[in-house]
Amino acid sequence: MKVLKTLVILLLAAALLAGCAASPSSVVHSGTPFKLLVLNCGSSSVKFRLYEMESETLLAKGAADRIGVDGHLRFEPQNGGAVLDEDRLFPTHEEAIAALLDLLTSPGYGVLESLSEIRAVGHRVVHGGESLKDSVRIDGEVLKTIRDCISLAPLHNPAALAGIEACRELLGEVPQVAVFDTAFHVTMPEKAYLYAIPYEYYEDYQVRRYGFHGISHRDAARRAAELLGKSPEELKLISCHLGGGSSVCAVLGGKSIDTTMGFTPASGLPMGTRSGDIDPAMIGYLAENCDLEVSEVTAVLQEESGLLGVSGLSSDYRDLEAAANSGDSRAALALEIYHYAVAKAIGAYAAAMNGVDGIIFTAGIGENSAAARKAICAYLTYLGVRLEPEQKDSYSGATRISARGSKVAVMVIPADEELVIARDTLAIVRELPAN
Amino acid sequence: MKVLKTLVILLLAAALLAGCAASPSSVVHSGTPFKLLVLNCGSSSVKFRLYEMESETLLAKGAADRIGVDGHLRFEPQNGGAVLDEDRLFPTHEEAIAALLDLLTSPGYGVLESLSEIRAVGHRVVHGGESLKDSVRIDGEVLKTIRDCISLAPLHNPAALAGIEACRELLGEVPQVAVFDTAFHVTMPEKAYLYAIPYEYYEDYQVRRYGFHGISHRDAARRAAELLGKSPEELKLISCHLGGGSSVCAVLGGKSIDTTMGFTPASGLPMGTRSGDIDPAMIGYLAENCDLEVSEVTAVLQEESGLLGVSGLSSDYRDLEAAANSGDSRAALALEIYHYAVAKAIGAYAAAMNGVDGIIFTAGIGENSAAARKAICAYLTYLGVRLEPEQKDSYSGATRISARGSKVAVMVIPADEELVIARDTLAIVRELPAN
Repeated sequence: MKVLKTLVILLLAAALLAGCAASPSSVVHSGTPFKLLVLNCGSSSVKFRLYEMESETLLAKGAADRIGVDGHLRFEPQNGGAVLDEDRLFPTHEEAIAALLDLLTSPGYGVLESLSEIRAVGHRVVHGGESLKDSVRIDGEVLKTIRDCISLAPLHNPAALAGIEACRELLGEVPQVAVFDTAFHVTMPEKAYLYAIPYEYYEDYQVRRYGFHGISHRDAARRAAELLGKSPEELKLISCHLGGGSSVCAVLGGKSIDTTMGFTPASGLPMGTRSGDIDPAMIGYLAENCDLEVSEVTAVLQEESGLLGVSGLSSDYRDLEAAANSGDSRAALALEIYHYAVAKAIGAYAAAMNGVDGIIFTAGIGENSAAARKAICAYLTYLGVRLEPEQKDSYSGATRISARGSKVAVMVIPADEELVIARDTLAIVRELPAN
Repeated sequence: MKVLKTLVILLLAAALLAGCAASPSSVVHSGTPFKLLVLNCGSSSVKFRLYEMESETLLAKGAADRIGVDGHLRFEPQNGGAVLDEDRLFPTHEEAIAALLDLLTSPGYGVLESLSEIRAVGHRVVHGGESLKDSVRIDGEVLKTIRDCISLAPLHNPAALAGIEACRELLGEVPQVAVFDTAFHVTMPEKAYLYAIPYEYYEDYQVRRYGFHGISHRDAARRAAELLGKSPEELKLISCHLGGGSSVCAVLGGKSIDTTMGFTPASGLPMGTRSGDIDPAMIGYLAENCDLEVSEVTAVLQEESGLLGVSGLSSDYRDLEAAANSGDSRAALALEIYHYAVAKAIGAYAAAMNGVDGIIFTAGIGENSAAARKAICAYLTYLGVRLEPEQKDSYSGATRISARGSKVAVMVIPADEELVIARDTLAIVRELPAN
């Protein structure tokens, strides 16, 4: 049975790889509701959302966490049905995705009659390397590129590949689209993406700045232009994606021209647990003086540093805000270091673009902490930045928070990366030939 | 004989360490010319200058290079006498310094009757750690601190110690003063000097931003304030020390509040052969993928990176300017990366200080390349920076090069670190009690 199943899967896969232009299931019938699944596979988690795309209605969302460790499942139908929240063992991503898809049609929690209602799947893929410059229908060549980038994203790309394989197995030849975290940054010029290291490390080992959070920065910049009623081409924007992972991006004329995250997501700004950029001599020094392996030092810099390392308390910004408000000086120091680093990145990108028209705050901290935005903008009055005196922590949609007369527009733009992935996926699937 | 000599030296050293208040030779007799030696000991070189300090006249200068490798000696008396320039074997710093001092009184090249005319010695010391906050008379405690900082500056501090020991041996109890490259930066606030790594690495292993080029940044900022006719306290200055090693420093109210070089001089901006700050995941990746030891990667990042690494041609800015002008695109790219990095650092420090009144260019590139200054300032018109249309490559003294009406004063301030060391040394020696 297993052999037969594998054979069927391989045949389906071969048909998919052979090119999907001939597949009638990929055609959009505009009369029928277009239901679309978005998967975001991390190293040990899968998040999903199911949308009805004509009205962009969320039908269900959920996540499987701690895959390969033990396992936890959360499933939230959006039709008022019961929420499932339980521990469940998931040895692999495939099994976690199978469980989530199973729930979509289950009698108790389901929102679909049949999985065949899913007309397309959009995947967040962290690394598309240098060649994948945009969201793209997944075919054999795209799979190969994602595989080739495993050495650049050893935790994330294998998870995305597992998600793609699982969907192919469980949903058949439904079109799948990859939306890359790196793609928005392929417009960076050489002076921004090259490190000052021997050039052959770029040519032979692809060591360069790639940039991440591109799905977020791209959407934030687009919506900022809309909010300002201007064309993206005429704007100099600085997008601050501030969350557990944080990066700042300079967007000139709608294109990313520089961003703080570089070769890997460990770099750039200090973050929840990550140090960001460091002195190259530090790793050897710490290894020698603290009697650690280099791999252990690297792990410390990624997992025990940033806000957590400085505060000694938590990687969570809200925890530190609370602690700082209760008089914890190390928590306050961690926040101060973070705000200062973001302000310096904004200053650097104002120089990179020779000016700035708008500053965007997005993601967990950017969207939800008035105190963080105020602390950062306090450095920037020399640019003519003036905030409205009354600030809320969060806003329901894209909102301008700078005062009338501020020379630079400051905006909060709540991120919805999954919806961006869904829209990209729909747009690509709609463009497929319908023969 | 050797034992006796050692004993004499030890006794002299003991007398010196016991405190020099009782030493009559340390008193400044204002009638006599005050001759002062400045030594700048690098890992394999010694540079010296001999000044007459009443009129700040340079009497002789020179250098011994390639110490411990083979050896080269250059001695330039400033009285019109012949220049000595020859290969000579120097196994140690002590022998190189002995050769230089010997020349000072030699019949052919000498400018002194006797070494006893030297009334004080000033040493450049790279690392003073956290405790040495200013230039200081060298005593046992200072020597201990310089020794304690060897792990932080393993190439430089042992060389400085060798220079101090050699002078003690050859010049007896003449007062010696240490002028530190780190001292100007001790005013940095915690948010600037702490890395976002576990706090115990700062407490237990002194891993923090120290900053270097402090002798240069301090003097440049002081002279910039003079040039602008303002008190340092009222100025926000950004000092760009651009040479084979490069760093940018934010000087607020006369005090360093941040600088690009951090834990070691390998960090911050890209430089002649140094990468500057990097992604912490890059070292492990390069070690694994290029089959290198971590120490080899670190060496590549310090010795084969920067302008040299990108261009594949030279670490020398002038070589690259010439090559770029002849159409070498990789040389042009290396320069572009360098200018861009400096401009972003200036932008970052404008944010750090919430504004900037003056930008200073100093050191080899900063003082001698109009093209470099123009390329950097081209990013900064958003700050109101406007250069005079006519620019010379170099200027004989501190010179304002911004146009009338520029919102930010741009200045070229030729560095003379040795004279700064000489002045610090004189000031400290003059303050010694004269009993």
